[in-house]
Amino acid sequence: MCHACVIDSVKRSMLSRRQLFSGAAAAGTAAIAAGALAARPALAQSGGRVVDLTHVLDENFPTFDGVPGIAYEEAVNFDTSGYQLWKLTIFEHSGTHIDAPLHFSRDGLSVAELAPETLICPLCVIDISAKAAEDANAMLDAADIEAWVSANGAIPSGACVAMHSGWAAKVGDTGFRTAPDGSFAFPGFATSATDMLAELGVAAIAVDTLSLDPGNSPDFAVHNSWLPGGRYGIEALANLDQLPATGATLFVGAPKHARGTGGPARVMAVI
Amino acid sequence: MCHACVIDSVKRSMLSRRQLFSGAAAAGTAAIAAGALAARPALAQSGGRVVDLTHVLDENFPTFDGVPGIAYEEAVNFDTSGYQLWKLTIFEHSGTHIDAPLHFSRDGLSVAELAPETLICPLCVIDISAKAAEDANAMLDAADIEAWVSANGAIPSGACVAMHSGWAAKVGDTGFRTAPDGSFAFPGFATSATDMLAELGVAAIAVDTLSLDPGNSPDFAVHNSWLPGGRYGIEALANLDQLPATGATLFVGAPKHARGTGGPARVMAVI
Repeated sequence: MCHACVIDSVKRSMLSRRQLFSGAAAAGTAAIAAGALAARPALAQSGGRVVDLTHVLDENFPTFDGVPGIAYEEAVNFDTSGYQLWKLTIFEHSGTHIDAPLHFSRDGLSVAELAPETLICPLCVIDISAKAAEDANAMLDAADIEAWVSANGAIPSGACVAMHSGWAAKVGDTGFRTAPDGSFAFPGFATSATDMLAELGVAAIAVDTLSLDPGNSPDFAVHNSWLPGGRYGIEALANLDQLPATGATLFVGAPKHARGTGGPARVMAVI
Repeated sequence: MCHACVIDSVKRSMLSRRQLFSGAAAAGTAAIAAGALAARPALAQSGGRVVDLTHVLDENFPTFDGVPGIAYEEAVNFDTSGYQLWKLTIFEHSGTHIDAPLHFSRDGLSVAELAPETLICPLCVIDISAKAAEDANAMLDAADIEAWVSANGAIPSGACVAMHSGWAAKVGDTGFRTAPDGSFAFPGFATSATDMLAELGVAAIAVDTLSLDPGNSPDFAVHNSWLPGGRYGIEALANLDQLPATGATLFVGAPKHARGTGGPARVMAVI
């Protein structure tokens, strides 16, 4: 399908908030009629399977610049006080984390300013693991989006589109970050894809690697075009291989510290 | 209703996972039949209103011990590098945050070890703002739970039960933390309530104050009984006044750092 056809197809399928609310009411009524569901809220009972897309962050988790992303200092000791807690030092872009517009723009939205409505959204998973197995710097491009839409239908406005490259399986190996010669090497998005997703009204893009751009990117082209537009990104997702291409809902537990350019996040999906 | 009646009523209303899945499938079919909803996942289109229950964390946000909960150091400068990010120093129990079992037990579950299934759950909001307005150290007790169940029905197993004391409105004032004489003063749970909630299989308790225990607690009785049992808590929630007593689904974006006793979290509800 051509770019224009993809965009037109998606625009025709977009729903107004009014349609969504009335539709939700209809589904809710059906749930109550089902009787057995009445005791639990609709969302809590929908689907049922939670998939945690978040890696555990510790001192050994790989980071883009190679510096440990988190350090621990004992603040309160259990034996002395009967409870315990840590004083943490965290570089914002560590572990499974958010890139807010402010990360790549002087005065863009901080992570605390992202609209909450954009943090709970439909998730579209595009699998490029086959070509990533052949080329460590493979890119998810416009053709991959066209093929996904032809196979799965329109990408909803407000969705998050995630690149599944298979890289999460390498997180414990140097191959997660670099090639044998030490150069950065991991898959990422191409601007031919992100320019199309921006036009489709997609809220966020996500990757299972250390960066929205591929490892061999000379200019962070995706960071520089996607983020300043007020959209956000998610890096270093886990478990995308446990999700369907479409049909999951994403919950993005972005941190909410003032002036944040991003930060470690709890990201989960419900099928 | 007596304690035993409350517990019996809840147990009778509990649903098996099988019932939940079949019910969800029925609701899903209804949604597809509604046609206009087919392009979006069931959860993303359900309800529709997201309520952010998370305060913005900065150097001035009140903390239990009075020490700033977060500090910022520039790690990368925008003018120099074309992007920017902070090196953050964070005390785990700052802002809207999680108390994991490990906070009050030597070897309990860390925040990274909480079951993801317990982080997306039904939310029950119990409003004690009237008595909190009369007594800054008011407690949500067993009688408040019995009254809530009589008015709203059973508390679902796996739910989060939140105390709405009205304290979130004081977050910018010293009254959020202390009385005029400087002593700690804010509402919290009584063990008569949390012991009942533990028996009902509730997953988490939450407060809109600085502590699960009231300000004048001499012994952190709720922390010491609730958390070591493998359950978690949420402190300093915002916007509970925007939610119904029952019917909302809670999404708890708990941090996932190894060995964490808790930490700042993104907490949202969907109605």
